[in-house]
Amino acid sequence: MSQSKSDSSRKRILDAATQIALERGPKQLTLDNVAKQCGMSKGGLMHHFKNKDALLAGMVEAMISLLMTDTEETQQQHDDGLAITTLLRSRQLHHEKIAMYQAKILLVAAVENPELLKPMQELMKCKKQEIESQDAIDESTLLWLAADGLSFQELMEISPFDETERNAIRQKLIAKAVALEEAKQ
Amino acid sequence: MSQSKSDSSRKRILDAATQIALERGPKQLTLDNVAKQCGMSKGGLMHHFKNKDALLAGMVEAMISLLMTDTEETQQQHDDGLAITTLLRSRQLHHEKIAMYQAKILLVAAVENPELLKPMQELMKCKKQEIESQDAIDESTLLWLAADGLSFQELMEISPFDETERNAIRQKLIAKAVALEEAKQ
Repeated sequence: MSQSKSDSSRKRILDAATQIALERGPKQLTLDNVAKQCGMSKGGLMHHFKNKDALLAGMVEAMISLLMTDTEETQQQHDDGLAITTLLRSRQLHHEKIAMYQAKILLVAAVENPELLKPMQELMKCKKQEIESQDAIDESTLLWLAADGLSFQELMEISPFDETERNAIRQKLIAKAVALEEAKQ
Repeated sequence: MSQSKSDSSRKRILDAATQIALERGPKQLTLDNVAKQCGMSKGGLMHHFKNKDALLAGMVEAMISLLMTDTEETQQQHDDGLAITTLLRSRQLHHEKIAMYQAKILLVAAVENPELLKPMQELMKCKKQEIESQDAIDESTLLWLAADGLSFQELMEISPFDETERNAIRQKLIAKAVALEEAKQ
């Protein structure tokens, strides 16, 4: 199999798996169901992902890759911001581009096997270092935690804010980060 | 069966279910396993909880009841605080009293069936109303979201902060809420 054909099969499998997990529920995320959804044999599927954990790991990796693309895009647009401003702006961009429910795959992984979130842990540690090395630590940490609180409430479907309110809060967080930058200059 | 005996069986079942879900993983949370752990027949168990959803709903309810007890205890100790200060202080108390991993039952419910978190949604809506009616809305909301961000990061086991840092952050959030109160007076 050529590399590009293999990559496109991988992507097709991950898309099908995400769709099954989110639309039919995580209990329906089985190798059999994913193979069926892709019109692929189970053996063919297992050539790419040897078990359910490997599949979930692939889904988490795809989610992180999306997050990192958004960060890069934000950095290109605003190349001189503090780390916290980049983080909040890329979160906003991420929110506009993909449905929040896609991020629910992180919840599924956290319940299924928290080890699968190791790459996400690493990403969080990097963010922390970036923020601590560069920003007004306390205030930036507060803004970061608030952005995460807002997302996680939504992810767990217990947010008391509606979409309009959440958008307004996200914009306020960005404005506060920008004010931190200006105060530093 | 007397009411008190029935209540104590309920509690024993919920404790066993929580232990299984958290120590052996949510996939092991079956009525058979819970009955076995309690030394009870499956029929006896089903007298109290007719299926897994009912069991999870009971676990979420027990968690919420703990949260509300902590809030009441905090209100008795500091009866004149802003809603946000009470919220942050009771969160701190809750954190000292129960292991965070117990709250992981909320993640399990969010993945298994988000409908089960309806009582939690209601609680969040009440908090929002309390805060909006009484406090410096923007600043209080920021502190609340930050507290939730900190908890959810820990819940998902992706927190970049260690326990000492998290404790320091919680204390800072409380201090900021107290400062809001003083500014209001």
